[in-house]
Amino acid sequence: MKPRAGTVELHPLAGIGEVQPGDDLAEILAAAMSMAGIVPRAQDILVVTSKIVSKAEGRFFDLADVSPGQEALRLAELTLKDPRMVELVLAESVAVVRAAPGVLITRHRCGYVMANAGIDRSNLGGVGDDQVLLLPENADASAARLRRDLAGQFPEPPAVVISDSFGRPWRIGVVNVAIGASGLPAVIDMRGQRDRDDRVLQVTQVALGDIAATAAGLVTGEGDEGVPAALVRGVSWSGDEAPASALVRPVEQDLFR
Amino acid sequence: MKPRAGTVELHPLAGIGEVQPGDDLAEILAAAMSMAGIVPRAQDILVVTSKIVSKAEGRFFDLADVSPGQEALRLAELTLKDPRMVELVLAESVAVVRAAPGVLITRHRCGYVMANAGIDRSNLGGVGDDQVLLLPENADASAARLRRDLAGQFPEPPAVVISDSFGRPWRIGVVNVAIGASGLPAVIDMRGQRDRDDRVLQVTQVALGDIAATAAGLVTGEGDEGVPAALVRGVSWSGDEAPASALVRPVEQDLFR
Repeated sequence: MKPRAGTVELHPLAGIGEVQPGDDLAEILAAAMSMAGIVPRAQDILVVTSKIVSKAEGRFFDLADVSPGQEALRLAELTLKDPRMVELVLAESVAVVRAAPGVLITRHRCGYVMANAGIDRSNLGGVGDDQVLLLPENADASAARLRRDLAGQFPEPPAVVISDSFGRPWRIGVVNVAIGASGLPAVIDMRGQRDRDDRVLQVTQVALGDIAATAAGLVTGEGDEGVPAALVRGVSWSGDEAPASALVRPVEQDLFR
Repeated sequence: MKPRAGTVELHPLAGIGEVQPGDDLAEILAAAMSMAGIVPRAQDILVVTSKIVSKAEGRFFDLADVSPGQEALRLAELTLKDPRMVELVLAESVAVVRAAPGVLITRHRCGYVMANAGIDRSNLGGVGDDQVLLLPENADASAARLRRDLAGQFPEPPAVVISDSFGRPWRIGVVNVAIGASGLPAVIDMRGQRDRDDRVLQVTQVALGDIAATAAGLVTGEGDEGVPAALVRGVSWSGDEAPASALVRPVEQDLFR
């Protein structure tokens, strides 16, 4: 089953202030939906940028506390990056995929291949200059928790996608993808289905979690933005729920290590 | 300037029948918009799947006419693909990026790094079993032509994006991206802009063309689908127009050749 719909609406959820460690995101997002006049219903998708999830989870780190090791110093020289930042990237990663001047692409411990392990230095809301923000500890778990908390407030809680902006190896510019998901199939498997001419489909797996995250970027912006969440309404899907980790291609299938 | 908006709407354009070589796509799409009750206005984005553009342009090819050469035979054995198909992929490509069982990733002559040079065997509408469909000759030119033709029918023609479904090296599933664009900045350059804390933005280039193409996939489906076009309404942008070729990372910056 692929996503199919009539008109789909992307609603920005504005008016969310600076999120602080310990804040209750479900409460904040419920208030933002209410301000937007939205009562969530089944098959709505609430897309939340990882930045506010990380902030609520207190994933700040002070670079002043980091002592770069040998490998970080070597990579910092190659990439022209702050060695303390490189040390943190390595601590969050299981492998370095590519390093070049201005570029440090690693495999994050959750499997995502991305720049700088998703560590963020911008729009942190006036914290000290050496403060950085790590990705959520486990964004699929964060999504599940948020959805469970929303289920306490709404009879039909939305599916939840946690998004982060990723570069692409062969294309310019960033797009948001899903690093956490709950309540929807982040990947829809159509393998074995046939087309109208009864030929086995070439397109067999649809990245619904990523597509919803990217689409939401039209109203939240990508990355450094004041609107940190959006509601996607009108997509209909069937198929088993799958977390965002299902979007990660297994290392043994990686042709670009 | 990044895309920012109130609510964004994604309208599927249904009721488009089997497109034939020589068909007037502007006429077909104008009729589909009319059926959907849509009069295009400035900053609407009409996303059209490459399949119907290729069909209208008569980009069919008969595998029975193809004699695979040595390189195609070698790659066919490695990839377990039809040698005639591999020959056509090579003819459409400037370099082989990766070949493995079931996988043939090349750099298309227009720069896109993608599987099988975008050559399509499914949902071709009952043509012979050996018929395949190549990508448009030059999808940016196709987009510009379509937009020019629409400008003859509407005072405010929509921007046009031609989409195709791409896999991703480290992520499961396909998403639509832009292979042609006209009337919008396919890439929005924010380099040098600063965030709310006056720090230079980490996210500096936003792939608006790809984001619109991916978002439209929520209503058209990806790839083998009956709804071949969608109208994206409510995005606002500024900045210079740029074609989809601006989304292609230059070969000399490619760390994954």
